[in-house]
Amino acid sequence: MPLTKRCIAEFIGTFWLVLGGCGSAVLAAAFPYDAKFPETANFFGLGFLGVALAFGLTVLTMAYAIGHISGCHLNPAVSFGLWAGKRFPSSELLPYIISQVLGAILAGGVIYIIASGREGFALTGSNPLATNGFGAHSPGGYGLLACLVTEVILTFIFLMVILGSTDTRAPAGFAPIAIGMCLTLIHLISIPVTNTSVNPARSTGVALFAGTELFGQVWLFWLAPIVGAIIAGFVYSSVFATPSIEEERRVRESV
Amino acid sequence: MPLTKRCIAEFIGTFWLVLGGCGSAVLAAAFPYDAKFPETANFFGLGFLGVALAFGLTVLTMAYAIGHISGCHLNPAVSFGLWAGKRFPSSELLPYIISQVLGAILAGGVIYIIASGREGFALTGSNPLATNGFGAHSPGGYGLLACLVTEVILTFIFLMVILGSTDTRAPAGFAPIAIGMCLTLIHLISIPVTNTSVNPARSTGVALFAGTELFGQVWLFWLAPIVGAIIAGFVYSSVFATPSIEEERRVRESV
Amino acid sequence: MPLTKRCIAEFIGTFWLVLGGCGSAVLAAAFPYDAKFPETANFFGLGFLGVALAFGLTVLTMAYAIGHISGCHLNPAVSFGLWAGKRFPSSELLPYIISQVLGAILAGGVIYIIASGREGFALTGSNPLATNGFGAHSPGGYGLLACLVTEVILTFIFLMVILGSTDTRAPAGFAPIAIGMCLTLIHLISIPVTNTSVNPARSTGVALFAGTELFGQVWLFWLAPIVGAIIAGFVYSSVFATPSIEEERRVRESV
Amino acid sequence: MPLTKRCIAEFIGTFWLVLGGCGSAVLAAAFPYDAKFPETANFFGLGFLGVALAFGLTVLTMAYAIGHISGCHLNPAVSFGLWAGKRFPSSELLPYIISQVLGAILAGGVIYIIASGREGFALTGSNPLATNGFGAHSPGGYGLLACLVTEVILTFIFLMVILGSTDTRAPAGFAPIAIGMCLTLIHLISIPVTNTSVNPARSTGVALFAGTELFGQVWLFWLAPIVGAIIAGFVYSSVFATPSIEEERRVRESV
Repeated sequence: MPLTKRCIAEFIGTFWLVLGGCGSAVLAAAFPYDAKFPETANFFGLGFLGVALAFGLTVLTMAYAIGHISGCHLNPAVSFGLWAGKRFPSSELLPYIISQVLGAILAGGVIYIIASGREGFALTGSNPLATNGFGAHSPGGYGLLACLVTEVILTFIFLMVILGSTDTRAPAGFAPIAIGMCLTLIHLISIPVTNTSVNPARSTGVALFAGTELFGQVWLFWLAPIVGAIIAGFVYSSVFATPSIEEERRVRESV
Repeated sequence: MPLTKRCIAEFIGTFWLVLGGCGSAVLAAAFPYDAKFPETANFFGLGFLGVALAFGLTVLTMAYAIGHISGCHLNPAVSFGLWAGKRFPSSELLPYIISQVLGAILAGGVIYIIASGREGFALTGSNPLATNGFGAHSPGGYGLLACLVTEVILTFIFLMVILGSTDTRAPAGFAPIAIGMCLTLIHLISIPVTNTSVNPARSTGVALFAGTELFGQVWLFWLAPIVGAIIAGFVYSSVFATPSIEEERRVRESV
Repeated sequence: MPLTKRCIAEFIGTFWLVLGGCGSAVLAAAFPYDAKFPETANFFGLGFLGVALAFGLTVLTMAYAIGHISGCHLNPAVSFGLWAGKRFPSSELLPYIISQVLGAILAGGVIYIIASGREGFALTGSNPLATNGFGAHSPGGYGLLACLVTEVILTFIFLMVILGSTDTRAPAGFAPIAIGMCLTLIHLISIPVTNTSVNPARSTGVALFAGTELFGQVWLFWLAPIVGAIIAGFVYSSVFATPSIEEERRVRESV
Repeated sequence: MPLTKRCIAEFIGTFWLVLGGCGSAVLAAAFPYDAKFPETANFFGLGFLGVALAFGLTVLTMAYAIGHISGCHLNPAVSFGLWAGKRFPSSELLPYIISQVLGAILAGGVIYIIASGREGFALTGSNPLATNGFGAHSPGGYGLLACLVTEVILTFIFLMVILGSTDTRAPAGFAPIAIGMCLTLIHLISIPVTNTSVNPARSTGVALFAGTELFGQVWLFWLAPIVGAIIAGFVYSSVFATPSIEEERRVRESV
């Protein structure tokens, strides 16, 4: 498949990741919209669990839909991690990442348009439009260091799961389930910390529409996920890479 | 399999989609039934998350049960989208759609019968019997334009996932998971907007029993899903259709 | 595998279905235990969604664990439905059903022992030990007719999904996911109606420990599920059974 | 794959199990953090359902990522159970278990570091850092006997599912789904009882950081899971082990 078509797939896929993940958070995490803690309960809203599921399902669904076209990265950190793991050529990093960011920005705009289609909508709270943040913009009030550690470690594991489940030794066809549910799990852990990024495109796509203060924190969500991803690519390829035939034989005999 | 038997499968499958999706919304979204926002919490009820899961599971379960019989469309927009993507013959559009609508209507009736089997049941709220709507009948108060955009885009992506995951290049057997969970995800995003349709049969089946005002809004849920689906069919088949052998070879060599 | 070993598998599997499904309902549906509607919210408890997921996962997990041993029916209605669909010999109906009921009873006893292992436990509410019921023992107050219709229809669809997803024409290996998630979906719809049975063994296993009034309603949960299952077995085998080679060829040519 | 590399995989995998499972419980089970039962609701928090899903997804994701490397035990009880079922050599029990416990301890430390990265964090409640316990440290106040029975039975079933779903007669590739979702189900049942262990490494990893009183209860979560696992290994291998060719033929002929 030519690079252009694969970039179109990445554009559509990342659009879906941000529309589905951030969109469900913006439109449905708390409902009715006038529910306010602590006076009233979140009567029908998704809460963190529903939003976590939504993010994971964006990846699961797109990986089955376009995995055979572009590999379905949908995330600059994933592209970097696959590159560090020697699964993706450096020459395609830039076109993939540009496509991902553009798709994320389009989704941010669409969410804004839909969300503002009701009376009373306003960009309020610590994380409007489901933006990521630290310190004053961490949903639970976590400091920069805790947020940095969280994003590095979670993206590290995310890439380990991606590299492992798409390894030729893993059962074929199941990687989208493993990877999508890993993203769900990552959100189950860390929405209170950073509102969960592990994806620079996702962070950028909504921050653009949420004001300069939140956009000023986006740097962390480029730095930390890419660092975690590159470490994973290096660890997986150097520690777990397909063993030589000789090694395989020795292990088989010893069991 | 003869067309008649496939239409029976579509009838049963769409019956299940509406019974499971709308039925869980009507019977179990809020429980106890006398819970009222904001005074009391939704103590045991499913909320949007449970209803979203129910809709997705209707498709997942039926796709494994009857996918090999009728293809398990369960949705006129899906039939149109597959037709636009050159996967379904125009000659079968009408019988499939009639079967789907009839199955949906039967389900609407059964939900009504069960729901009215307790004292105190009444058709109340903005969306009785889990009907779809906009403006005054949007659960979150969204206007016509936001509802139109939402239904077109979500059905567009729904068909992209259907066309992609059933592509011969995608891993075999997993499409029902991808498609079912895509419908769950679509509901996670958009229940507050239109109560989520992306399916003209589902909208019609319950609106018939919910009064003329709600039935008068059903046109949007024929128009928007079918438009989104046809665009997806056109985009997928023209952009991502199986590349020629020559293209495949060039890409393989370049990686 | 000899019949005895297969009956042991059915015994263990049905034990798990009741322990996991009814156990999660009894132990974790509402938490803290002193939460009471409407004064306080169900702070951590599973609600209907969590219980529905638990029931489905009992079947999903056991179907992968013992499907290759006994077929993993775990339910007299399933055994009857497979028999009606010509997939199960009548000579094995009785041993399977006895094993299922015994496993369910053991689970009911274990749930009772664990649940009573804390101070303040008592058999209270309309459905103690997660029993099924109608009228005064329907969680939402549904009458006998609504409960009968619900159980017949839901078991009918349950068996359609079982027969379809285990059809040789369906993708191999996925049936446990389809069947387990179908049971989850059935619970999402009908916990408020009958507390959801579709399984005479499950109903009997807990009713035995819950007093004569609830045990006196168990007949409905033998009658309705078995009727629905037998209808499904008849419909699937007569309508959707593998078409003759001649039919297949005619259809292929017409598409 | 050499033993050292497999132990690295077990270390990383168990790190993920504890970080994902206990981390989501500590960071996100209740949110906002100042929500307190009974005065206010758990507005966005995961509750037991979200935490149960998180634990299961740690295993599902890692089993696809490293199953082909180490078998993905992540749990001393699993290693013992596989050994009892004659699937794992006794010579590797100790290195596997040491790796698992070290990974769990690292995760406990990381959770502590992240959790303390916000003002107002403190080790409070009956189960700080998602520790396991009985009596005064059972979330629902269950006594030692109920807790012992629960952990033994649930680990017994857990190993039955592991042994069954990885049996060569079970469909290939699905075991991670069955096993992960079994762990989710186990948590749906038993978080109120023991906060759910079935895994000595998980219990130890967080108890180390939670004070001597909780660490003093860790013995139960070594004893009960290993006993349950060993019984399962014995039962599965002696009752359900691959039948002889002769038996297989007799059964086939009788159906």
